[in-house]
Amino acid sequence: MRMSNMLVLTLREVPTEAEIVSHKLMLRSGMMRKMASGVYNYMPLGLKVLNKIEDIVREEMNEEGAQEFLASAMLPAELWQESGRWDAYGDEMFRLKDRNQRDFCLGPTHEEVFTDIARNEIKSYKQLPVNLYQIQTKYRDERRPRFGVMRSREFVMKDAYSFDKDQEGLDLCFNKMNEAYVRIFNRCGLDAKCVEADSGAIGGSNSAEFMVKSDVGEDDVVFCNDCNYAANMEKASAIPEKSEKEDLKDVNKIETPNTKTIEDLVKLFNVSKKKFIKTLLFKADNKIIAVMVRGDREVNEVKVANFLGGVDDFNMASPQEVVLATSAAVGFAGPIGIKVDELLVDAEVSKTHNFIVGANETGYHLENVNYGRDFQGKVGDFRNVAVGEKCPECGGEITIARGTEVGHIFKLGTKYSESMKATFIDENGKQKPFVMGCYGIGITRTMASIIEQHNDENGIIWPLSVAPYHVVVVPVNIKDEEQMRIAEAIYTSLKKLGVQVLMDNRNERAGVKFKDSELMGIPMRITVGKKINEGSVEFKLRSESDNELIKIEEVCDRVKEEFEINNLKIK
Amino acid sequence: MRMSNMLVLTLREVPTEAEIVSHKLMLRSGMMRKMASGVYNYMPLGLKVLNKIEDIVREEMNEEGAQEFLASAMLPAELWQESGRWDAYGDEMFRLKDRNQRDFCLGPTHEEVFTDIARNEIKSYKQLPVNLYQIQTKYRDERRPRFGVMRSREFVMKDAYSFDKDQEGLDLCFNKMNEAYVRIFNRCGLDAKCVEADSGAIGGSNSAEFMVKSDVGEDDVVFCNDCNYAANMEKASAIPEKSEKEDLKDVNKIETPNTKTIEDLVKLFNVSKKKFIKTLLFKADNKIIAVMVRGDREVNEVKVANFLGGVDDFNMASPQEVVLATSAAVGFAGPIGIKVDELLVDAEVSKTHNFIVGANETGYHLENVNYGRDFQGKVGDFRNVAVGEKCPECGGEITIARGTEVGHIFKLGTKYSESMKATFIDENGKQKPFVMGCYGIGITRTMASIIEQHNDENGIIWPLSVAPYHVVVVPVNIKDEEQMRIAEAIYTSLKKLGVQVLMDNRNERAGVKFKDSELMGIPMRITVGKKINEGSVEFKLRSESDNELIKIEEVCDRVKEEFEINNLKIK
Repeated sequence: MRMSNMLVLTLREVPTEAEIVSHKLMLRSGMMRKMASGVYNYMPLGLKVLNKIEDIVREEMNEEGAQEFLASAMLPAELWQESGRWDAYGDEMFRLKDRNQRDFCLGPTHEEVFTDIARNEIKSYKQLPVNLYQIQTKYRDERRPRFGVMRSREFVMKDAYSFDKDQEGLDLCFNKMNEAYVRIFNRCGLDAKCVEADSGAIGGSNSAEFMVKSDVGEDDVVFCNDCNYAANMEKASAIPEKSEKEDLKDVNKIETPNTKTIEDLVKLFNVSKKKFIKTLLFKADNKIIAVMVRGDREVNEVKVANFLGGVDDFNMASPQEVVLATSAAVGFAGPIGIKVDELLVDAEVSKTHNFIVGANETGYHLENVNYGRDFQGKVGDFRNVAVGEKCPECGGEITIARGTEVGHIFKLGTKYSESMKATFIDENGKQKPFVMGCYGIGITRTMASIIEQHNDENGIIWPLSVAPYHVVVVPVNIKDEEQMRIAEAIYTSLKKLGVQVLMDNRNERAGVKFKDSELMGIPMRITVGKKINEGSVEFKLRSESDNELIKIEEVCDRVKEEFEINNLKIK
Repeated sequence: MRMSNMLVLTLREVPTEAEIVSHKLMLRSGMMRKMASGVYNYMPLGLKVLNKIEDIVREEMNEEGAQEFLASAMLPAELWQESGRWDAYGDEMFRLKDRNQRDFCLGPTHEEVFTDIARNEIKSYKQLPVNLYQIQTKYRDERRPRFGVMRSREFVMKDAYSFDKDQEGLDLCFNKMNEAYVRIFNRCGLDAKCVEADSGAIGGSNSAEFMVKSDVGEDDVVFCNDCNYAANMEKASAIPEKSEKEDLKDVNKIETPNTKTIEDLVKLFNVSKKKFIKTLLFKADNKIIAVMVRGDREVNEVKVANFLGGVDDFNMASPQEVVLATSAAVGFAGPIGIKVDELLVDAEVSKTHNFIVGANETGYHLENVNYGRDFQGKVGDFRNVAVGEKCPECGGEITIARGTEVGHIFKLGTKYSESMKATFIDENGKQKPFVMGCYGIGITRTMASIIEQHNDENGIIWPLSVAPYHVVVVPVNIKDEEQMRIAEAIYTSLKKLGVQVLMDNRNERAGVKFKDSELMGIPMRITVGKKINEGSVEFKLRSESDNELIKIEEVCDRVKEEFEINNLKIK
């Protein structure tokens, strides 16, 4: 592509709306433009990257025997009513009516559609297993679209749905997809960690997320510094800290006026935070639940809700509800004499001796309280893991980072096949529901994540595998005939090799051209300047700060070498 | 692809909902499935064809220097309000609101979006010309979706928008696009005629349509049997038939009771239909218009509306309005004494002598009426061309066929750039509106049209350029080890060449396999059967009824030869 014929859309200024580096750089380099809140148009450079990511995904999905489909984005309400999600989905689903007042939505995901396809097309176990995927635009009406395509309302997703005759088949497919995802993110140059995850609203029992570390990530991810362990905060097992062995003392009621916080109590009692146990009240649907964790810990609400099972609505209890349950002002809740439907005790609390808790009486606490002797409750893991704690797998040290999800693989089981009566005839002639899995990759989000991991102060540094162009040829002075002749010759011979080349023949200063190509992140730059008198041109990798001087006749080999180093074929 | 791993979706029965051959065959061969009225899912085989057509379009657009973009399908109302089309578009536009009650639509077309992109990104004449295109899903809420993807509510379209500094630039781009379209349809194996067309609701002055003959087409297309002339009915110039020279006779009022139709009058007067002139009344916005055409002709309403210019609403006048204008019952309208806002006279009428017209008096006609002497009016071309008339270009014979539009190229001029204030700075430092063109191809409709032109009683006959697979290898008996060994060897060596091959290794009778591959339209079939004992296999083209017996070692060359014959490279 000759840049004189190209609509070049780079911006010098940093757009004010952009908060994170990928969003800024995608706007500045002209990859995309905003059309409405959370809705973007892809410009030629951005579309090329998007297509390359899509091709990598496609190759690896095909490699695992998955077949590409393309479903409509506009979906009839009937399918969603069958699965029960038409009402459950809420405000995040874009809905519309056609001219005959029939209800449609813009698909936020496609479980229903592919379950419908399977029940229509797959009759017998002989046709199984089947894994169907598509690369397609999804719509979700985010409450607060932010960070460019990291949290947008319209985005490109690869979603796959597998249909197996039994759990073993699903497990096999899940593992294949897991491996394919590792290869996909590797080929995209993206460092994405596979973490255990909670399966959330999509349902089912087993799921893993592919997360990239990101300051603006939506989730806390727990990593082990020493082994490969990684998990979402709600899935990371907390190892109870061992407390020192002590003889059990007698419970003692102490007056604690004006103690609103743990800090006030620490000051008053002059003992460690670990000696205090917090009792927090929640409302789970119509029940009041008390949860006890150590004073220095935080309750993990997802763990609590999952422990309770089948909870639709989970919130902190209101002050009125706290007063009713404790017969005291807020701040004096404790396990003894509390009126709640369920008392949950974090495992660590059950192993702490002689601790201090609220007395369920305004202005009083109890000391020397012990689980088992003084109160009963259901013991479990109800808290967040904290930095510095021990890894549940190897005992190594835990760190916590914010993460953004770029991929998610689920074992759905028979959730959708049962509700939508999607069945096949098994070996014994019996009707059975498909055992399903689903597997997503956020294509647009992957693109932004690659930029988050590959940039510097001058712009994007695309990995060669997804770069919009591989090489830019920059003649320093387009009025110099010899420079132009050599630049054109290099451009032509690289194109002939199959390399994707930009020829920056614009009538601009070399500095402007360098700035643009660095902003756009083109991996290799060949500068054709005065050194042609010595038969040389400059070769520069975007990822390196130094130039190499190479012979004109060596340019093609040098470029080929980079493809080899990156283990890529020139297409 | 091994067919044992493929979800094969062929149907033996003809689906009842399908009225035309392409719709039937796309369902039967498993190319697509209906999800809702006018909304389809593409199955693997159909998606492959779609992608091949898209790639051909992409190559030819790039060849002409157009740049690929991708705009959102969900568009904010504001852009459409600016152009005035938010209200004008009516029921055909799908509309929705987001969670904040902001209005959006699903884009039925993208003029507004690309005009917006241009006004934001193109500042100077130095950046021009620019031609931007996308291949993207469009949404139109058709009143009566029919014929599969021929008239669907969701469809894939290539739409391009060009921006030039002046009319000459636009003319050049329009011609380039015209040539690219000819190449595209040729490469797709589609016989599409470029016809002059009316530009309709999109606006602008100059347009051409690419039409394919089709019994279920929405438009009448006029073709010349002798030259290349082709035009839409509303654009086809009617050549007035010369009437015999006669002396002008005196007007004479004749009683004509019970004559409701031209046929009744022909019987009564015993002269040719050509001697009678019909006077038809229309309502154009708030005006009553009378149009006179010969008794054997039909009024073309588009020609009339275009002649009047700027008409929003154009309909037949009501009986009440006819009575009011003629002071007579319906059936006796004529030019003399009629009370209308405008009297339009078809050119042929102005050249007919001594004709018969209604007397504007119930039960009476006038004979020997002549234009000029007895009444005045505006003369023009207001009628449909009929079969057997003369070609306006060469005088040859006209035929008329139904046609479906697969492509449309428009000169928009400054319609959108003016309403949306999309301007650039010209050579003299002045703000000027872009001179625009737009260029569409219905990708899904092209796919269906190819099938309409390439099929037989056994199924589809894909042109090699767009076939989902090039070759199918059919071992007659998969339990015969030698047959399977040779079939696998052929499969592998063709794949190595880059040929897209299906290996039908299903445990089915050969007849079933033949039927499926013919239904799917795979261009070449290699049957590996008992003849391997003589070192031979059968080679059959889908388009031919005869087999060839060829040596096993000649298979690759024979396949290569087909690519050469079709002027295609093996990718």
